[in-house]
Amino acid sequence: MIQMAMANSGSSAAAPPRQDQHDRSKWLLDCPEPPSPWHELKSQVKESFLTKAKRFKSLQKQPLPKRILSILQAVFPIFGWCRNYKLIMFKNDLMAGLTLASLCIPQSIGYATLAKLDPQYGLYSSVVPPLIYALMGTSREVAIGPVAVELIDPETDPLGYTKLVLTTTFFAGIFQASFGIFRLGFLVDFLSHAAIVGFMGGAAIVIGLQQLKGLLGITNFTTNTDIVSVLRTVWRSCHQQWSPHTFILGCSFLSFILIARFIGKKNKKLFWLPAIAPLISVVVSTLMVFLTKADEHGVKTVRHIKGGLNPISINDLEFNTPHLGHIAKIGLIVAVVALTEAIAVGRSFAGIKGYRLDGNKEMVAIGFMNVLGSLTSCYAATALECLTRLLYYTPIAILASIILSALPGLIDINEAIHIWKIDKLDFLALIGAFFGVLFGSVEIGLLVAVVISFAKIILISIRPGIETLGRIPGTDIFADTDQYPMSVKTPRVLICRVKSALLCFANASSIEERIMRWINEEEEDENTMSNDERKILFVVLDMSNLMNVDTSGITALVELHNNLIQIGIELVIVNPKWHVFHKLNQAKFVSKIGGRVYLTIREAFDACFGLKV
Amino acid sequence: MIQMAMANSGSSAAAPPRQDQHDRSKWLLDCPEPPSPWHELKSQVKESFLTKAKRFKSLQKQPLPKRILSILQAVFPIFGWCRNYKLIMFKNDLMAGLTLASLCIPQSIGYATLAKLDPQYGLYSSVVPPLIYALMGTSREVAIGPVAVELIDPETDPLGYTKLVLTTTFFAGIFQASFGIFRLGFLVDFLSHAAIVGFMGGAAIVIGLQQLKGLLGITNFTTNTDIVSVLRTVWRSCHQQWSPHTFILGCSFLSFILIARFIGKKNKKLFWLPAIAPLISVVVSTLMVFLTKADEHGVKTVRHIKGGLNPISINDLEFNTPHLGHIAKIGLIVAVVALTEAIAVGRSFAGIKGYRLDGNKEMVAIGFMNVLGSLTSCYAATALECLTRLLYYTPIAILASIILSALPGLIDINEAIHIWKIDKLDFLALIGAFFGVLFGSVEIGLLVAVVISFAKIILISIRPGIETLGRIPGTDIFADTDQYPMSVKTPRVLICRVKSALLCFANASSIEERIMRWINEEEEDENTMSNDERKILFVVLDMSNLMNVDTSGITALVELHNNLIQIGIELVIVNPKWHVFHKLNQAKFVSKIGGRVYLTIREAFDACFGLKV
Repeated sequence: MIQMAMANSGSSAAAPPRQDQHDRSKWLLDCPEPPSPWHELKSQVKESFLTKAKRFKSLQKQPLPKRILSILQAVFPIFGWCRNYKLIMFKNDLMAGLTLASLCIPQSIGYATLAKLDPQYGLYSSVVPPLIYALMGTSREVAIGPVAVELIDPETDPLGYTKLVLTTTFFAGIFQASFGIFRLGFLVDFLSHAAIVGFMGGAAIVIGLQQLKGLLGITNFTTNTDIVSVLRTVWRSCHQQWSPHTFILGCSFLSFILIARFIGKKNKKLFWLPAIAPLISVVVSTLMVFLTKADEHGVKTVRHIKGGLNPISINDLEFNTPHLGHIAKIGLIVAVVALTEAIAVGRSFAGIKGYRLDGNKEMVAIGFMNVLGSLTSCYAATALECLTRLLYYTPIAILASIILSALPGLIDINEAIHIWKIDKLDFLALIGAFFGVLFGSVEIGLLVAVVISFAKIILISIRPGIETLGRIPGTDIFADTDQYPMSVKTPRVLICRVKSALLCFANASSIEERIMRWINEEEEDENTMSNDERKILFVVLDMSNLMNVDTSGITALVELHNNLIQIGIELVIVNPKWHVFHKLNQAKFVSKIGGRVYLTIREAFDACFGLKV
Repeated sequence: MIQMAMANSGSSAAAPPRQDQHDRSKWLLDCPEPPSPWHELKSQVKESFLTKAKRFKSLQKQPLPKRILSILQAVFPIFGWCRNYKLIMFKNDLMAGLTLASLCIPQSIGYATLAKLDPQYGLYSSVVPPLIYALMGTSREVAIGPVAVELIDPETDPLGYTKLVLTTTFFAGIFQASFGIFRLGFLVDFLSHAAIVGFMGGAAIVIGLQQLKGLLGITNFTTNTDIVSVLRTVWRSCHQQWSPHTFILGCSFLSFILIARFIGKKNKKLFWLPAIAPLISVVVSTLMVFLTKADEHGVKTVRHIKGGLNPISINDLEFNTPHLGHIAKIGLIVAVVALTEAIAVGRSFAGIKGYRLDGNKEMVAIGFMNVLGSLTSCYAATALECLTRLLYYTPIAILASIILSALPGLIDINEAIHIWKIDKLDFLALIGAFFGVLFGSVEIGLLVAVVISFAKIILISIRPGIETLGRIPGTDIFADTDQYPMSVKTPRVLICRVKSALLCFANASSIEERIMRWINEEEEDENTMSNDERKILFVVLDMSNLMNVDTSGITALVELHNNLIQIGIELVIVNPKWHVFHKLNQAKFVSKIGGRVYLTIREAFDACFGLKV
């Protein structure tokens, strides 16, 4: 059947009768009105909810328990997978959990100290939130810390400061969860793949440099994260106070972890070795310090973990404070920043492992994590006191070397080379994010990446280029003469196509100028042949690339038409898209050029030359 | 000849032999490499200079005097038109000059006072710069004023403050001229037509409200320009101090000017009446005040114009100050802001009068104006002392009413309605600029307009829409089924086209999802027919809309291909543009889909069904 339809259409395309062509031209001129922007927005929102609604409808036919389960599954994915959970999966997950824990716990303690909170909050943040969501809850404190210090000095009022941070966390959680519920998950898409590769590379180096503090046993370390401040501090400290014992200890365990990973990679049977190497390091080094009392000889340990607070920190939340408005504002900023970072990190892990993130679920999870975290922090801390006691003698250098050992995996040079080969502008976003994180901060890096990515979109969309079209030999197809060098130019006609998707204020006037310049050049070239009449009769403007046109664009088209009329050339429009045609029609441009709008260049030729030649 | 070529190609298109088609497919696959971004940038820069270079080359054949004249003409357009100047033109220009002067002088004096400079600087700025360039030189001071006050208090050190402003003006001029020389004129294009309409409307209302100060004779007026502060001040003043004499005087002359304009419009012979009405108003009112001594009865006059300074203000420029870096920075900001404003105003006048602006010449002119202005200000002020003495008794209310009378012409409601009809998003930029100027400031209005305009570009470029294509009856053309409802869908094939110009990080994953969802829906619909085999065999992705694709886009395509393979559907690519095809090829995507890339949908059908059905 299809074959037949093909053959049929093929033969009718061969010699289209004039009547047919007239009909087709009418189809273009009388096309239905496109949906208005409001209508389009509405249908887009509807569509995004439709899938849910459909699922919900098919749900209503099912018994109540099954219905509840389905809704729970949609909000908490754990209900989805826990029923099909198998033992083999548990083994993998245990490994992942151990790796994560051995990475997260020390890192979180470090970050908590950086945010001027007691270390057990760091511990809590690496243990409680993973019960709700893994990995996050670290950068949150880093973001809150410096801002919160402006309001309350942690030195003079430690309890007030803690309350402030917990309340801010609560607000951040509320905001994040509502982002997710209101389906702002499309924000996930604001980071391009290239930007994430650059961002992760820069972040890895910055985190690595931060660990020099622990590895060298330096006491006074900068709170800035940029490479310049960190290296300056390290340089200064190397001349004054650093602990060689700590350094040797850290380096030897770092080598152990790296060797373990190398073995794990070479020998697939020993895959568990790299996963538990960090844990072994912590246990062995803690024992070593405990037995040799090395902490009295300059080796810094986690040490200053104090006893618990009151069991549930819900009492620590303060809503009755003059700072509340300010706190809510910080909460919003933290929510946005933490979310972007979390998604950047999560996305890049997803990219490595090959699965996709649902931005909305992601946000709801992170939000709930923060709310519950702020309500339960001290409860968790109390419950974990035994663990904190065990960590008392753990040397900080070991925690630093565990983090350091994980970083090379975040720097993906091969991917960077791949991106360089495929897309130079994408590579620019990568480099921007990388150096932004390295010399500025995480926020600056993200900002640079987003700005470059969007600047690239704008650049490509408004590039004021036009291309000439020629006929592909043996067909009725007209294509770019640069891409298809074998295409043949048609004499006496200038066929051109706008190279960008928009004819708007930013490129309309230069496109108009360029077309006029081309015509003048063409005419000059032909002037060598001493022929009196003008060489170009038509300018055929192929609009198939244009997605949209604005009022400045229409003004430029009118100007172009007026200029062409003055030198006796006719303007013909070919294949305008729905919205473009509608706007040209509304602005009376179609009637101004005498209705010379055609579906294809071939039809335009037939119609124009049929009348003129 | 053309007719013949048409007929020939027509017949060959009818039944393309398999060999031909194979050739064409090879043409696509073996197309030359597109130019790299660097290369493109280079050729773009080259092209923009080429026109100049060509002109320069043709110049070298000519004798020296003519050559110099040509270069002078290029930089200073006055050399171009002064040789063909005719007396009839002079009449028109005199009228324009008078109108401008009668508008500019009072306005400039007002702005100078606002910038806390002596009024004669305002006078100078409205008389000297117009010799170089008309109209500008007012907003410059408004911009410098508030910033400069931070450095030196004009009350305690008036001479130092004046020096500061002149030095800043000098820097602003240098920066502006260099913008023009380095051909940054494309910045002119950053304001859309719609934004300018809104901006001018808002500015007209704001300027009008400012004039209430003069019209009501209020002494303590706010320096803010937003509507809220101004109305609050006016409201407060109405209860306390305002001069009814001043108000009546101002209103009567305002009526006179408006009636004169109305008569001038009705009777074409009296065209000169509206042009000289402001001048008549100034002369008559000044005489009235001088004779009746109304200034002693509460009618405010220009009055406080002092004697001149040293003859050439080049000595007033201070480069040996600790503030120099700061001054240069202010100069840069002022240059950018003043330029944008000047161009916005100039463009909108150009739009009304129907001629085009050359952004680069514009900038060079404004820059030279500022440099020369800052060097000669006091010289000019001295020379103009006689004029300032004449203006001593001119009531401020008259100046206000002259400005007020000119404002309605700047509010273009018809154009706003026209824009609303054609483009709703353009109208949003208009409204944004309007309210930004009204409730914020000129800078905020410009910012809002630019941001909305570019957000619109981004939105249109990355819209994650796809459209299904159907065959136009009687042809081989496939077109949007929404735009052409008579088009026929092909069974067993899903033909879709991306609705945006880019397949990038911001829309790639949602486009991929949408295609998968469509396939599932299509299959569900067909499931009612109890047929065991799958209904869809191919997904044909028409890429003719895509200008570019980034690494995230390619990843999404690979994912789409993998997903389709799993459910036994083949992905076919049609008509990728030069850059897109090159990137897909580099990323090995073309070989991954088995080279199924075709020039047209028809050829894709022939090739695929020929093999499969």
